[in-house]
Amino acid sequence: MSQARIVYLNGDFLPFAEARVPIMDRGFLFADGIYEVSAVLDGRLVDNEAHLARLDRSLGEIDIRNPHSLSEWVALQTDLVARNGLSEGLVYMQVTRGVYERDFAYPPADTAPTVMMFTQAKAVAKNPLAESGAKVITVPDLRWKRRDIKSVALLAQVLAKQQAAAAGVAEAWMVEDDAVTEGSSSTAFIITKGGTLVTRPLSTALLPGITRQAVLRLAAETGLTLEERLFGVAEAKDAAEAFYTSASAFVMPVVAIDGHVVGEGRPGAHTRRLRELYLGMARESV
Amino acid sequence: MSQARIVYLNGDFLPFAEARVPIMDRGFLFADGIYEVSAVLDGRLVDNEAHLARLDRSLGEIDIRNPHSLSEWVALQTDLVARNGLSEGLVYMQVTRGVYERDFAYPPADTAPTVMMFTQAKAVAKNPLAESGAKVITVPDLRWKRRDIKSVALLAQVLAKQQAAAAGVAEAWMVEDDAVTEGSSSTAFIITKGGTLVTRPLSTALLPGITRQAVLRLAAETGLTLEERLFGVAEAKDAAEAFYTSASAFVMPVVAIDGHVVGEGRPGAHTRRLRELYLGMARESV
Repeated sequence: MSQARIVYLNGDFLPFAEARVPIMDRGFLFADGIYEVSAVLDGRLVDNEAHLARLDRSLGEIDIRNPHSLSEWVALQTDLVARNGLSEGLVYMQVTRGVYERDFAYPPADTAPTVMMFTQAKAVAKNPLAESGAKVITVPDLRWKRRDIKSVALLAQVLAKQQAAAAGVAEAWMVEDDAVTEGSSSTAFIITKGGTLVTRPLSTALLPGITRQAVLRLAAETGLTLEERLFGVAEAKDAAEAFYTSASAFVMPVVAIDGHVVGEGRPGAHTRRLRELYLGMARESV
Repeated sequence: MSQARIVYLNGDFLPFAEARVPIMDRGFLFADGIYEVSAVLDGRLVDNEAHLARLDRSLGEIDIRNPHSLSEWVALQTDLVARNGLSEGLVYMQVTRGVYERDFAYPPADTAPTVMMFTQAKAVAKNPLAESGAKVITVPDLRWKRRDIKSVALLAQVLAKQQAAAAGVAEAWMVEDDAVTEGSSSTAFIITKGGTLVTRPLSTALLPGITRQAVLRLAAETGLTLEERLFGVAEAKDAAEAFYTSASAFVMPVVAIDGHVVGEGRPGAHTRRLRELYLGMARESV
């Protein structure tokens, strides 16, 4: 795009190069902030109200007031998508506890949160990786205990994703006590040879995935049996199909885990069907 | 001070209000960075080489190249202290993986790290809290598993310190599996009624405290018996003395834990002696 990239920062739409935050921003000093990502398809936001509801919940869990109502958020997102002429990709939103002299405890309650948004153009629907299927490796889960909060304290996830990149694969599945907890930026699923869709139940130990929720809804409609429980690495390698979900990967087939071929080594029939159903739902989003 | 505050950012000494980082800084997006804090006493840096060695080690653990040699760091710190006319307080240093389009995996290896430093004036030696003694509460330890890395992914510590602030006390001691792991920004110690100084041994589960190390050295010289092991909350409440250490608190007596009075409810004799010895050592730092 020749169009100049525009980002949103604290009330202003700015040229990308001008968007800077003070060094005393608590996002920069303490990872004291929350983020969300909504996909954009055909210029429209996908399952966006669920993302904004999760943003509101995450902010509440760490006592940051949500600086915008749902309709204000949608108006800002829509404006940003339009200003960037974005038809396919994602909108990233971040809210931090704001700018104040460095001290661990919260600053005064009237400190204004920092609000930042940008877009990224990306082939989220016509993603070639979804055709070939993704390979994943497993890594130890180093994260903190409140994984239900979508905070910017992402160093453990960065290290996991980098291990995947170094291994030449798309994603790292994190493992704790022999069970697969989550992908570094996705939710992990398997489909057993008996035809049961398995993913772990919600708790403070994982992010309540928006795409996860949509896929569980769609899977129930197709008649797949659902089982919400932990699964191990050995069970995943032995599964008929595997996949992961996220706001930008949608439903991504997994064809190898730690070099072990899953199923027939290509995207499974159930997984392809779930991706199609998800894309259908996404395109119907208003 | 009427003197304008000056901070350091990527090669420049800037007025505080002008020091900003791009929104794509990985410190702001991912907590993908490391920090250190050195105390300043009589205008001189305290135990500074040990802090710079730990900075180097932390950076290495997450594959960020240290942008400066030891002597370059010291020159920058000294310059910053002088420009701010700082005689007592601290120097804060932060290095992030730099600025690059958002993606979890590392950016190209030639991406320049972000280097930022500021000073804070603070009564670190003549701290009234050291006279009265500090109260602490205990909170669950929510942190990640690589606590030996001094990263800016500090949200768990922020939440812990805020609980302390809300309870009207100075520090929160974090607890996991019934043992005291660390303070939210300090190392925890007790002295048993039998006269043994107890603190947990180094591992990936705690920060290798620079002040901790100095205090263990000084304690050995005074003839106190040392024991490096975990201790529980009940044992701490029943201890003869308790204290915590950090680069800015030095040796801080603890006089109450969760409202339970420790010892005689005032700074203990061993603790006061260790604080004096530490201050003596600090003032001799060059």
